[in-house]
Amino acid sequence: MSLPSPIITAFEHSPDKGKGLARDMRVRWALEEVGQSYEVRLVSFRAMKEPEHLALHPFGQIPTYEEGNLALFETGAIVLHIAERHAGLFPDEANARARAIMWMFAALNTVEPPILDRETTRLLESEKPWYEERLRFTENRVRSRLSQLSARLGNAEWLEGVFSAGDLLMVSVLLRLKSSGMLDEYANLAAYVASGEARPAYQRAFAAQLAVFMGQSPAS
Amino acid sequence: MSLPSPIITAFEHSPDKGKGLARDMRVRWALEEVGQSYEVRLVSFRAMKEPEHLALHPFGQIPTYEEGNLALFETGAIVLHIAERHAGLFPDEANARARAIMWMFAALNTVEPPILDRETTRLLESEKPWYEERLRFTENRVRSRLSQLSARLGNAEWLEGVFSAGDLLMVSVLLRLKSSGMLDEYANLAAYVASGEARPAYQRAFAAQLAVFMGQSPAS
Repeated sequence: MSLPSPIITAFEHSPDKGKGLARDMRVRWALEEVGQSYEVRLVSFRAMKEPEHLALHPFGQIPTYEEGNLALFETGAIVLHIAERHAGLFPDEANARARAIMWMFAALNTVEPPILDRETTRLLESEKPWYEERLRFTENRVRSRLSQLSARLGNAEWLEGVFSAGDLLMVSVLLRLKSSGMLDEYANLAAYVASGEARPAYQRAFAAQLAVFMGQSPAS
Repeated sequence: MSLPSPIITAFEHSPDKGKGLARDMRVRWALEEVGQSYEVRLVSFRAMKEPEHLALHPFGQIPTYEEGNLALFETGAIVLHIAERHAGLFPDEANARARAIMWMFAALNTVEPPILDRETTRLLESEKPWYEERLRFTENRVRSRLSQLSARLGNAEWLEGVFSAGDLLMVSVLLRLKSSGMLDEYANLAAYVASGEARPAYQRAFAAQLAVFMGQSPAS
């Protein structure tokens, strides 16, 4: 590698116990796809809300990305930066590249919000009297998006022919539904997610974040 | 203009009665900032869910953007494409440009979701027994984000020194809160939004979308 390794941040204690759903996974996967080594600085939940981290990430979250004089937050912006700086995540042709960026935004802005709404409801509202009804309501919104995405994907392996940063983010977003069973209602989406998980770069990234949870290095 | 005018789609009947909160406003504003003329095709709610429009926008929404062989959906991707193709919405320096993109994602992925959650609750859950409690819950999540954004903005006019596509989307997102009064709890955010609204490009875009609602052309 001719470029110095960027530094990313990740949870010191992964809330999902190494299932790979924290957002550092998306950045790790992107870096693995382009063959860029990286360093990881682990951050505790307490430190995330302290001035030093807030200077890097005003909303007190992970991941962040530091590379020389550049410091970024927002997973979408970090993945886009990596895709622009290296070959492997964007097609060369300008219009195809614009469509890859379109799917990045679609993953984060159109498909993920109802999925997060369902998760927030499960996490924060499970003791409320409205819980069951609201959960079904959020699940119907998720299904509406999945139906539309499934119709567009059809029998294609990737959203625009070749794997791109758009697929990386869409697969990452859909993976949040894995334990729900909802993904299995759409065979082509389940296959799409499985294709993403089967990529060697995904598997390296997954192993690296799991190693943090297991408290051991990937090599040990 | 040497480039042919792109075609965007907008609601035939604006649900907000011309208040400028529909997402075509963001694309209109971006096009006005860079001095690119455009054409508008109005779409009815029924047509948005029909195959012809779904071929352009798989999630059945507006706006879309057509320019020669390129067809895009997702407001963020459209604004980013406009910013890359014209001067005026991105700084020239690479790191400054990456930070502008970071604020685009922050607007759409971190600040807008709790605002939309509040709107969805107001729109779809006002008859539910949990309505009042859930509305307060969503408003506290909005305030949490506004506090963090307000702390980062400080006394600056724009998020990174000069106006960029990041400010365009952040101001657009914050404008959704205008009628709530919540924005006025943060004087610097209220001033920031006012600076955005005062831009001549914003005002031209606002007049153009209002003219659709009023059923008249801007020139008449």
